[in-house]
Amino acid sequence: MRIARHIQSLEGYVPGEQPKSKSVVKLNTNENPYPPSPKCAEVLKSFDLDNLRRYPDPNYSELALEIAKRFGTTPDRVFVGNGSDEVLSLCARAFVENDESIGSLDPSYSLYKTLAAIRDVKWMGMRSGRACDAETDIRRPIIDARTSLFLLTNPNAPTGEFREIEDIAAFARRFKGVVLVDEAYADFARGNCMSLATAPTNRNVLVMRTFSKSYSLAGLRVGFCVGPRDLIEALYKIKDSYNVDAVAQRVALAAFKDRVYHRKTVATVVKTRKAFAKALLKRGWDVIPSEANFVFAKPPEGTKASDVFAYLKSQNVFVRYFPGPLTGDRLRITIGTDEEMKKLLDALDRMN
Amino acid sequence: MRIARHIQSLEGYVPGEQPKSKSVVKLNTNENPYPPSPKCAEVLKSFDLDNLRRYPDPNYSELALEIAKRFGTTPDRVFVGNGSDEVLSLCARAFVENDESIGSLDPSYSLYKTLAAIRDVKWMGMRSGRACDAETDIRRPIIDARTSLFLLTNPNAPTGEFREIEDIAAFARRFKGVVLVDEAYADFARGNCMSLATAPTNRNVLVMRTFSKSYSLAGLRVGFCVGPRDLIEALYKIKDSYNVDAVAQRVALAAFKDRVYHRKTVATVVKTRKAFAKALLKRGWDVIPSEANFVFAKPPEGTKASDVFAYLKSQNVFVRYFPGPLTGDRLRITIGTDEEMKKLLDALDRMN
Repeated sequence: MRIARHIQSLEGYVPGEQPKSKSVVKLNTNENPYPPSPKCAEVLKSFDLDNLRRYPDPNYSELALEIAKRFGTTPDRVFVGNGSDEVLSLCARAFVENDESIGSLDPSYSLYKTLAAIRDVKWMGMRSGRACDAETDIRRPIIDARTSLFLLTNPNAPTGEFREIEDIAAFARRFKGVVLVDEAYADFARGNCMSLATAPTNRNVLVMRTFSKSYSLAGLRVGFCVGPRDLIEALYKIKDSYNVDAVAQRVALAAFKDRVYHRKTVATVVKTRKAFAKALLKRGWDVIPSEANFVFAKPPEGTKASDVFAYLKSQNVFVRYFPGPLTGDRLRITIGTDEEMKKLLDALDRMN
Repeated sequence: MRIARHIQSLEGYVPGEQPKSKSVVKLNTNENPYPPSPKCAEVLKSFDLDNLRRYPDPNYSELALEIAKRFGTTPDRVFVGNGSDEVLSLCARAFVENDESIGSLDPSYSLYKTLAAIRDVKWMGMRSGRACDAETDIRRPIIDARTSLFLLTNPNAPTGEFREIEDIAAFARRFKGVVLVDEAYADFARGNCMSLATAPTNRNVLVMRTFSKSYSLAGLRVGFCVGPRDLIEALYKIKDSYNVDAVAQRVALAAFKDRVYHRKTVATVVKTRKAFAKALLKRGWDVIPSEANFVFAKPPEGTKASDVFAYLKSQNVFVRYFPGPLTGDRLRITIGTDEEMKKLLDALDRMN
């Protein structure tokens, strides 16, 4: 056997399109419309080449310490990955045996299914939220006794829905395995679960964050998670020795420390989101209340989401369309600058 | 089960020490003593922050194309990873079923054993070369019918021994699984196996290279492999979507294109290696002929390698010592600048 059987039949994850042209209004992959902190540019400009020649700090000590301090915990409860993607992939190996399964909300981040397929275990979807029907509830008993890792995006993607910390805590208490709360979008939300992760009594909750969204560093690949010491230690054991490069460590640290800039960028995106949601509602769209840097919205009666998607693309405005029964009637639209959202709205107005 | 059983009992890989002090003569992790090409600094200085804000090219198209052109092949036969470490880890998952095993020479790169343990499969060591006894030979029938991935370092580490392409081709022809020739040090050697990887008839040979050694970019984490289309495709399927960050893609490309600088650096290291090996021989050491950027050498009769290691460390000269029956009588010494090698030799001379 040259290629493992389950990989032969695997369909890889398809990331959102990355058009080369800068004239595209790119609202399809939840990137931040604003550049990263100017401190990041300074780091790049003055980078000591000797730090490229040598291996990076395998434990990214400075960055881990800064993260720990920010959230009132210790560095041995912090793990940093080559993007959140790597953290997820390591969790799928560290916390899942070959005969166990990975669960997530459904709909949720479409990568999770692929992750389970790559890991060659079953994926269990738990219906959730207004985007589908209201029949299920996160507080209901868990789906499958063999589910050992639950990936809980909050705010959820692509819906943008936010769950209160009490609900997530209740879920985690009843769940036998590891709950990873993927807080990629939490900086845009009214709350978060970090206090569950740092609680001394916490046994099974990891909270994950990324520099890709609110810090405008998707190009850099830095994500991290915080949680119980033994779970963090398991991730360290199986990670590549030097998984976060020297440049990424320093640039992420600079962005993380520039809190004023971060707050300002986030506030601007949230303000635009609110205005944009209103503008869509005014045009007869159904908009799920979002706490993220995107909205998941349904066009007015009689207009198909897939048609709007194609039309917008023809107008050089890229948004994201997820086919399928739970998601196919809506579009996920990233919040860009006010100007970009106006271009999208103008295009919509021209469509009619 | 919170943490997978095999990970609970796992001992992680221990990378070579990374002292913070720059006064250390650091000859322990095979880093290049010379800085990367000045073109790398230019890339960092002029980096467009907009490329940090956006996700990187998931297929690192420009870099893959340049690598393909250099070796006379096509980009769909090139895979790039977050360091060679990631390529190895992906191979361990793509080409090994749960009941198969991973083989390598023994002694060889100590990470391979850890990789097998992380993958929860058996590791099979094949005795090899002058560093142990001559009883075994790479051309002999293969170790275990369940070995589906063989990691063949050439030149080998820590020995520095070089195998001719004919021997490796013969080995690969008889081996049922995938042979990954780890050519981390090949730029310092008199030959390499890239033509096996790019041959149209090749079915099972991957050749892996890294930017960490000859390109002086260990801090950046970029490695790549070249091989048959179906094996490369399998790696693409299971990699993280954006596994090589935007900065790494551009800096590696700049280093790769600066061939004049690369040749000069490599030639200088090789020249120093030859002089240093002679100097050790003159002092009664046994030095395995090396084709890498290090030597694996045994102190004169009556002197223990572990003692020399400890003594050198006390003198602020770091080399690498691998305990164990196959390696414990030698030290692996990275080739630094002429000045650094002189400091090491001076320290040795003071020891007596």
